[in-house]
Amino acid sequence: MALEKKKAVVLVSGGLDSTTVLAIAISQGYECHTLSFDYGQRHRAELVAADQVSQSMGAIEHKVMALDLKTIGGSALTDDTIDIPEEARDGIPVTYVPARNTIFLSIALGWAEVLGANDIFIGVNAVDYSGYPDCRPDYITAYEKMAKLATKASIEGDTLRIQTPLIDLSKAEIIQQGNALGVDYSQTMSCYQMYDQGLACGKCDSCRLRQQGFIEAGVTDPTKYMV
Amino acid sequence: MALEKKKAVVLVSGGLDSTTVLAIAISQGYECHTLSFDYGQRHRAELVAADQVSQSMGAIEHKVMALDLKTIGGSALTDDTIDIPEEARDGIPVTYVPARNTIFLSIALGWAEVLGANDIFIGVNAVDYSGYPDCRPDYITAYEKMAKLATKASIEGDTLRIQTPLIDLSKAEIIQQGNALGVDYSQTMSCYQMYDQGLACGKCDSCRLRQQGFIEAGVTDPTKYMV
Repeated sequence: MALEKKKAVVLVSGGLDSTTVLAIAISQGYECHTLSFDYGQRHRAELVAADQVSQSMGAIEHKVMALDLKTIGGSALTDDTIDIPEEARDGIPVTYVPARNTIFLSIALGWAEVLGANDIFIGVNAVDYSGYPDCRPDYITAYEKMAKLATKASIEGDTLRIQTPLIDLSKAEIIQQGNALGVDYSQTMSCYQMYDQGLACGKCDSCRLRQQGFIEAGVTDPTKYMV
Repeated sequence: MALEKKKAVVLVSGGLDSTTVLAIAISQGYECHTLSFDYGQRHRAELVAADQVSQSMGAIEHKVMALDLKTIGGSALTDDTIDIPEEARDGIPVTYVPARNTIFLSIALGWAEVLGANDIFIGVNAVDYSGYPDCRPDYITAYEKMAKLATKASIEGDTLRIQTPLIDLSKAEIIQQGNALGVDYSQTMSCYQMYDQGLACGKCDSCRLRQQGFIEAGVTDPTKYMV
């Protein structure tokens, strides 16, 4: 009789980081259930990318949960009245979505409980993290501690792990790791703006980190940029 | 010049507990922004009640966020194929919604950050908590610790408090406290089933706790029950 595979919920955005995380989780033998959010982001291309990578990489299922973060606003990513900056700035960027990782992890936690999964994978990164508070290791540790107490599983003696395999990696190291695992980065997208015909802007924080990462990794960047 | 009132996000369900929490937060001088979720619950009457109590008690605004927890399923409250039990049972009841408080608090946290509020009020209760893991004091403590690290405010030196004024109170004590603050409990509803014309079933866990609470509090129960 075949052993049952251990289950994991993997948060996928269609971007470079979370796609690499999915490749890592699959390489570690997890049965992966991927989760994305339709949270009022400016363009749909990332949800399409999330679905494509989930299917092509062998996730068991991909769910998209509708979650209208425009209800609470407060970010350039969810509020059309705030412009996306085209140059790097100090401090926490306007693309920060208040409590986003906390919200996403919490819904993943609910789904993990329904599935009987003890592992949640998220592509947070403390190196190239753009100043987002909810990408810091201390935050993840505190989240995991909370999550262990939050669920029925905890009462029944199960555990819960928040897995962050990218947390200490540079963008170049992430790309090298994904490349070694056969990730097709042409399926992923990082741009905050994203133009028609799959063109990335090449100017936003996210595009700049991505371009620099491929250069430092010594891997050809398959992204099509406007500039 | 008048001092600016301190802001709070108050989670309101339209039920007895959260309505009492709102009365407490208002009595403590908070400018209250109330938040409810349209999360696929079986009936809409509780959202109507949440709106009514928010308005009549003087909340600044009431937001209802759509959040389709049916996407992840796993509870009698969000899955029509699971029946609501009519008798008390041991263990965690089927009306438990996986990670619900974690999810609700996380969205409240995002809104609190947008508003510049340092306080989130939630009506969890560790006495009559029906065996829900996310009503335990240890869980709330862990959540607060995580929340302090999760937001931009934390980087800027602000704090964040999860306020649970009911956590150690019996249902009777909650009712007595709300009664003293002038809460009109006829506007609230607790029933998991809820029939037409505002009739509560009188049989589910929630109805039983409510009925018993009014009896023990020595306060007249304004609820209309089927039985």
